[in-house]
Amino acid sequence: MIAGIDIGGTSTKIGLVDGDRVVARERISTTGHADEQAFADALVAAVRTLLHAHKAEASAIGVGAPNGNQHTGTIDRAPNLPWPQDVPLARMLSERTGLPCTLGNDANAAALGEWRYGAGRGCTDLLVVTLGTGLGSGFIVNGQLLLGPFGNAGELGHTTVVMDGRPCTCGRRGCLEAYVSIRGMRATYQELGEDPGILEQAGVLPIATAALNGDASALQTFRDTARWLAVGLANAVAIAPPQRIVLFGGIARNGDLLTAPLRTRFEEALLNIHQGRVELCTSVLPEDDAGILGAAALTGMPMP
Amino acid sequence: MIAGIDIGGTSTKIGLVDGDRVVARERISTTGHADEQAFADALVAAVRTLLHAHKAEASAIGVGAPNGNQHTGTIDRAPNLPWPQDVPLARMLSERTGLPCTLGNDANAAALGEWRYGAGRGCTDLLVVTLGTGLGSGFIVNGQLLLGPFGNAGELGHTTVVMDGRPCTCGRRGCLEAYVSIRGMRATYQELGEDPGILEQAGVLPIATAALNGDASALQTFRDTARWLAVGLANAVAIAPPQRIVLFGGIARNGDLLTAPLRTRFEEALLNIHQGRVELCTSVLPEDDAGILGAAALTGMPMP
Repeated sequence: MIAGIDIGGTSTKIGLVDGDRVVARERISTTGHADEQAFADALVAAVRTLLHAHKAEASAIGVGAPNGNQHTGTIDRAPNLPWPQDVPLARMLSERTGLPCTLGNDANAAALGEWRYGAGRGCTDLLVVTLGTGLGSGFIVNGQLLLGPFGNAGELGHTTVVMDGRPCTCGRRGCLEAYVSIRGMRATYQELGEDPGILEQAGVLPIATAALNGDASALQTFRDTARWLAVGLANAVAIAPPQRIVLFGGIARNGDLLTAPLRTRFEEALLNIHQGRVELCTSVLPEDDAGILGAAALTGMPMP
Repeated sequence: MIAGIDIGGTSTKIGLVDGDRVVARERISTTGHADEQAFADALVAAVRTLLHAHKAEASAIGVGAPNGNQHTGTIDRAPNLPWPQDVPLARMLSERTGLPCTLGNDANAAALGEWRYGAGRGCTDLLVVTLGTGLGSGFIVNGQLLLGPFGNAGELGHTTVVMDGRPCTCGRRGCLEAYVSIRGMRATYQELGEDPGILEQAGVLPIATAALNGDASALQTFRDTARWLAVGLANAVAIAPPQRIVLFGGIARNGDLLTAPLRTRFEEALLNIHQGRVELCTSVLPEDDAGILGAAALTGMPMP
């Protein structure tokens, strides 16, 4: 068994992974703990409760977290988490449990999860793109997760698609993430939209609903998003071509609203030597378990 | 000794490499041979002449060529070479000499050459960008040349920097190569220029000379080129960060005309987590020998 921990801004999922399945799961709040020590205590308590209930033992712990640095095992000043400083969570969990613990960033966890358990199985080269509040990515290159010499490779969301374009949360302009993400799509709709009332609801769902009801600006938002994403993906393919690209997250699951125009735009955007060679698909992992499976995959335990 | 062969559109350089030096060199025309068999015969004759004159034996042959495919050892329909079909040159040279022969594309050869013999020594992750008629690139990732599952990775020149931008020779629009290359710089000067007479001379030298004489459009051409290149390089860094980027080719050697504005623009273009971490430098290999050394490096013989 591997314990997989998926840390999000609001809640943290904890699960036990046996082979390629999550056999038990628990959820705790990420916020409201006295400090990061108390949070680590709560994680360990949750893991122990699950193990006890299943009369099981864990061989390793994997943690996926925003701004997780796999080289150091720390969460580095994550803007959406309660701790302003670097948190050496891998060490803290190992000290409490005696188990090896691997901590990495959530997009890399998603990439490893798709590669090991999901739509990326069997690929030597894979790109997984997580579409949420931001745009994360993880690259498998030649059978290995691409970490780079500084532990921070694979930031497709912060490649420039529009020079001098929209401001991005990273402080620069024109990043793919500023266009292709929940935040980006809401900005696109606002630029196009005639009915800003739709944006009173959070997320991308109101735009998807409007699109399904024939709202022209909402449909255009999906088409524009597909176009920017196609260019971003084609740039990634030009540099490090994968056999397959897996799209992960709610935006990609809104029926065909994004993926139908994306398929056309993506082939158009590819260099001729890559056309027809890169599969595009969406995640097949059960949404609730994907983060836990990805976190477990970070441990690098033998493939099932 | 390794025999290194650097195939260009006009002439082909052949050299013997001992350790990290080219100890003998020869040049034949790439064009004017009856067919590719006659060209292979001429290459082998040149290698034999060099070996005989130096009383030496070769242990391997490396060939760098436009559109060289390292997976198959073929030159695949190179638009600037005399043979319209795929030429299995690696096999043809092996059959004639009994020596192992590795053939790869010229930008990858340059990357390996810089990594093994030049400004990229000691890096585990390196990006080499060749600036010439086009823009080529080779990525060393985690101590290995990035080839990708189809043998055609590392096409930085065909990443999009301007959506719906200038037409590129690849048939698409807005590629980095359409802006940052001899062809691209001439187009930029033409768009800006008041004196199209300067472009009556070929290459980028007339623009460099005009810039050194204070021509405003020529200076602006170098500044604009630096800005586009900075974005292209920063996109590469976001995906696969190297410790160092080496610029190779005549454009980068025009004094500081390109590199001075590029240094500023490049740091500005980087994501904060990469700022201050990626060295930018120009090739230190002697220009005449770089292609031969790169071709020799393709053979993967032990590092000197």
